[in-house]
Amino acid sequence: MSRRGQFITFEGTEGVGKSTQLGNAAKTLETLGVDFIVTREPGGTPMAEAIRELLLAPREEPVNDTTELLLMFAARAQHLHTRILPALEQGQWVLCDRFTDATFAYQGGGRGVPQERIALLENLVQGEVRPDHVILLDAPVETGMTRARHRGDLDRFEQEAVSFFQRIRDTYLARAATAPARYTVVDAAAPLEQVSARISELMCKFYSDLL
Amino acid sequence: MSRRGQFITFEGTEGVGKSTQLGNAAKTLETLGVDFIVTREPGGTPMAEAIRELLLAPREEPVNDTTELLLMFAARAQHLHTRILPALEQGQWVLCDRFTDATFAYQGGGRGVPQERIALLENLVQGEVRPDHVILLDAPVETGMTRARHRGDLDRFEQEAVSFFQRIRDTYLARAATAPARYTVVDAAAPLEQVSARISELMCKFYSDLL
Repeated sequence: MSRRGQFITFEGTEGVGKSTQLGNAAKTLETLGVDFIVTREPGGTPMAEAIRELLLAPREEPVNDTTELLLMFAARAQHLHTRILPALEQGQWVLCDRFTDATFAYQGGGRGVPQERIALLENLVQGEVRPDHVILLDAPVETGMTRARHRGDLDRFEQEAVSFFQRIRDTYLARAATAPARYTVVDAAAPLEQVSARISELMCKFYSDLL
Repeated sequence: MSRRGQFITFEGTEGVGKSTQLGNAAKTLETLGVDFIVTREPGGTPMAEAIRELLLAPREEPVNDTTELLLMFAARAQHLHTRILPALEQGQWVLCDRFTDATFAYQGGGRGVPQERIALLENLVQGEVRPDHVILLDAPVETGMTRARHRGDLDRFEQEAVSFFQRIRDTYLARAATAPARYTVVDAAAPLEQVSARISELMCKFYSDLL
């Protein structure tokens, strides 16, 4: 088995069940005796969480797109270098709720920030580092929005229009299509037990592939 | 006279008298009937000031160099696009306490972040925008440190060693040497009245040059 841990990210629009499936993936890894951490973006360290608060707080001052993009990557640099990479180097797996694919999808697809600007910052902050596996929980936007609304926690991002989330979903799917070996698209509109079984199966597969 | 205001930045290491001389420059512009704003970096808008607080707060978690750099430019993007550029476009002059030269000097010269990484972010955030005039208040590091210490407000940056500030001063001077038309180096170790007279004279010159 590889010494280095596996870096697995969970992506998707609002309400597709990322938190539930992260918990489910963690349970499967526990049964396999895999050492892992669960973390999230933006955030994952006290400093990065402070940046997250700045990003998500509703405010009167309109936030410039470049400001938002740089704050995302500032939080990511902190998280990656002080938490994710040290964990991976110790052989721990890292399960992360969102990563750079979310920036391409939300800031790029959603807000129209040119993909090259995002790619430039991705290289600046991450160098060659990319997730080993990206799990994209995919569902029609309306399905996810309804769930998020019922949850009652619509923040600044979640107050955006449906068309915004449609562009995000499209960007996620387009990225997944370019690198099918790294991305797994999971139908998150399927019944919960079915989605959960698929996630557990994927964890087993990623584990087995290293044996 | 040019419709667009003049963008003038004040640079220098700790304790060289930037605040005093900004106030002095403002008084001269008032006597000339020039419409202007006084602002500072990092900061200048509520969002950018919140980022400034994140940057300057002493904290246990070591702050990654790239995180610091991206936060600086996140604050700058917000300040530039929501405050500085709108003011300039309305014909106001902008007097700014520190700008991108400080990033080259502090993060580049001081912390050893490669200049190309900073230049890349400068282009990403500013496009072609550069200050019309940079006033570099220059003094031996010991002179400034003593003044800053007497002022009693040593934050995370000011707690650094003298050699750190020496590298910052050197970087400032090297940048000034590459573009003497845009940079004016003022001897800040001279008696205060002399420095103040020089600053007022410069404001008059920048004003006259536009007539």
